[in-house]
Amino acid sequence: MPITRPACVLLDECDSLRAFRDRFTLPDGVIYLDGNSLGALPKATPARMREVVEKEWGEGLIRSWNACGWIDAQRRVGEKIGRLIGAKPGETLVADSTSINLFKLLAAALKLRPGRKTILSEATNFPTDLYIAEGLIGLLGQGHRLRAVEPDDVATAIDCDTAVVMLTHVNYRTGRMWNMRQITELAQRKGALILWDLAHSAGAMPIELAALDVDLAVGCGYKYLNGGPGAPAFLYVAERLQLSASVPLSGWFGHADPFAFEPTYRPAAGIARAAAGTPPLLSLAALEVGVDVMLEAPMDEVRRKSLAQTSLFARLIEQDDFEIVSPRADELRGSQVCLRHPGAWPIMQALIARGVIGDFRAPDILRFGFTPLYLGYAEVWDAVATLRQVMASGSWRDAAYQSRSIVT
Amino acid sequence: MPITRPACVLLDECDSLRAFRDRFTLPDGVIYLDGNSLGALPKATPARMREVVEKEWGEGLIRSWNACGWIDAQRRVGEKIGRLIGAKPGETLVADSTSINLFKLLAAALKLRPGRKTILSEATNFPTDLYIAEGLIGLLGQGHRLRAVEPDDVATAIDCDTAVVMLTHVNYRTGRMWNMRQITELAQRKGALILWDLAHSAGAMPIELAALDVDLAVGCGYKYLNGGPGAPAFLYVAERLQLSASVPLSGWFGHADPFAFEPTYRPAAGIARAAAGTPPLLSLAALEVGVDVMLEAPMDEVRRKSLAQTSLFARLIEQDDFEIVSPRADELRGSQVCLRHPGAWPIMQALIARGVIGDFRAPDILRFGFTPLYLGYAEVWDAVATLRQVMASGSWRDAAYQSRSIVT
Repeated sequence: MPITRPACVLLDECDSLRAFRDRFTLPDGVIYLDGNSLGALPKATPARMREVVEKEWGEGLIRSWNACGWIDAQRRVGEKIGRLIGAKPGETLVADSTSINLFKLLAAALKLRPGRKTILSEATNFPTDLYIAEGLIGLLGQGHRLRAVEPDDVATAIDCDTAVVMLTHVNYRTGRMWNMRQITELAQRKGALILWDLAHSAGAMPIELAALDVDLAVGCGYKYLNGGPGAPAFLYVAERLQLSASVPLSGWFGHADPFAFEPTYRPAAGIARAAAGTPPLLSLAALEVGVDVMLEAPMDEVRRKSLAQTSLFARLIEQDDFEIVSPRADELRGSQVCLRHPGAWPIMQALIARGVIGDFRAPDILRFGFTPLYLGYAEVWDAVATLRQVMASGSWRDAAYQSRSIVT
Repeated sequence: MPITRPACVLLDECDSLRAFRDRFTLPDGVIYLDGNSLGALPKATPARMREVVEKEWGEGLIRSWNACGWIDAQRRVGEKIGRLIGAKPGETLVADSTSINLFKLLAAALKLRPGRKTILSEATNFPTDLYIAEGLIGLLGQGHRLRAVEPDDVATAIDCDTAVVMLTHVNYRTGRMWNMRQITELAQRKGALILWDLAHSAGAMPIELAALDVDLAVGCGYKYLNGGPGAPAFLYVAERLQLSASVPLSGWFGHADPFAFEPTYRPAAGIARAAAGTPPLLSLAALEVGVDVMLEAPMDEVRRKSLAQTSLFARLIEQDDFEIVSPRADELRGSQVCLRHPGAWPIMQALIARGVIGDFRAPDILRFGFTPLYLGYAEVWDAVATLRQVMASGSWRDAAYQSRSIVT
């Protein structure tokens, strides 16, 4: 039986997460399929920003470090994110960017596995993960190597020289999802540490870091956590590793007693040692609002709806002239569907001009992200209908859609 | 002739910078002598924050990376800060925190001076500078050492093993200021690089990095630049060094073409290679407002007033029972005056309770910062009068002022 738009409207009417849509601001005339690149604005954020800027900063001034809990913000918001990713209390911290946090944890991992020289990853990982590993190895100059293999070869490539396996749970370009349990067990069985980058999964699906005994993880605040552009990132270190983990970016916020101004570094006892410099409080305040909204949503329901939406999109699109790059099997797919087409860039520009916002990933990928808290089923239908109009009319071949902007 | 309050009021009336006070929001009943810890809120900031949150993020969503210049924000604001510190175009970038930027530039410096093993600093430098050097050295494990000597011994301690001299231009605790020209020349004559931390001087006085041919510098956005709590920091790399400087925190924003998603790191040509991860845009937007205000102020006038105010404060206080820790000679003093007293902590708490906000620096320092854009001469007078009341009444001995909070 073909899927109809009325059937999609009915799905929206029966959607248990439907009320969350009202918690976000979205511009009229836009179907937003890019919340995996920059999450939408929670309606509560502007008021909170006014409060932190005008009241806490403007009136409280320096006193707000104590009086408004700024000093604890990294740990407080970290704890909240920890609940979203199945961490135990005291294992998650908001800090810096994903890139910087990768550097910290990779460096800690190599120190924890001194005899081993390989950082193992996949060649199609998000580039910053690979770049950071490269930079660390170059800095150390101790014969380490980054081995970036094809996804299908990762499992067999883990060997006795592997210090750490660094993988992104959901691939940014294909949406392919790793079996976290399987790879974690495999890495640990070989004596390697596992480091998961949760950029495209935290806030999109249930994650159970503690239950799977994951060693290390990082993740992003501005995608499914709706923390705002460039929101601070987070990191996770399993409690059992914290005392032995040495974080080389030893800034004063990671010191056991920052305001004692001791001349020698003494790392804080727990996860706080992974902090470095003073955190960007305004961005952190916005992140907390996004995380608070996400904490209200039952994550199983989020995942169920995400799979229903990505599956709906793929079913609709399979009649068209696109190669569907993302896995069709639920257990292999994150919260996105990617299509391959040689005209991916202009097609996406034509689509955006019609209010359907996804993004392009070089060289030939149209990427569509699905954010169950603020995306409806009828919107999925309408997005596909718009894509069909773009293709049928040939409007994407217009000169206006050919030129490249910086961010793609 | 004794200084009188009417004389201070007259100074305010004749103050060429007086109009700038109206550009800042300050709470009633507060004399703010802590702008060197957290600068005050510019009146233009709340509107700009509403715009970036509600319009650029909320309505523009992912499109604002191009449409609203987010992608260039680090360089754009960096250029503006560059004008405040006498850098040439293309030498300054906003990025990360001061701690992280110190790590980047120290690592680059050690690579640029491969035969040399010493990072030279002063023992009383701001701790994070020393901690970061310690962390880098520990990570490298290549026989480097941090040599932290007394301030008076720095000049003679520079030798042929010194890779980089890392100093904070104005000391956070004493307000003592280095002769930047002299130390820069001395370091370079011995073949070392110089790295200046401008945390307590950028925005407080004219700085001429390019004219002095300074190699490297970092600085803080939330003090004299009024960028908001935890505002992103900045870094400077002399153009002549940029091509050879290797920044180990090689995140995707430092790549020559981040959105090509190449598997291998290729550093951007100029200062952009010192970027790492996605920057916190909301905090960065606030920083830009603070920097814009500062750019309107003639920096010579700012310095002249700063010296007049710190000198006024010291002259008034010299009759009292405090040791003045900060140098009295103008050329040796930053924009703060520090007093030593065994009761420094409770005295400062009693003072803050009466609306005069300075801060405490362990173990026995009362620190007062002077921010000419929003501080009046009569306020300096009144602050001293309040301090005298606190001392004369003995109220600072009350139990309420004894207990320590986290941030001091």
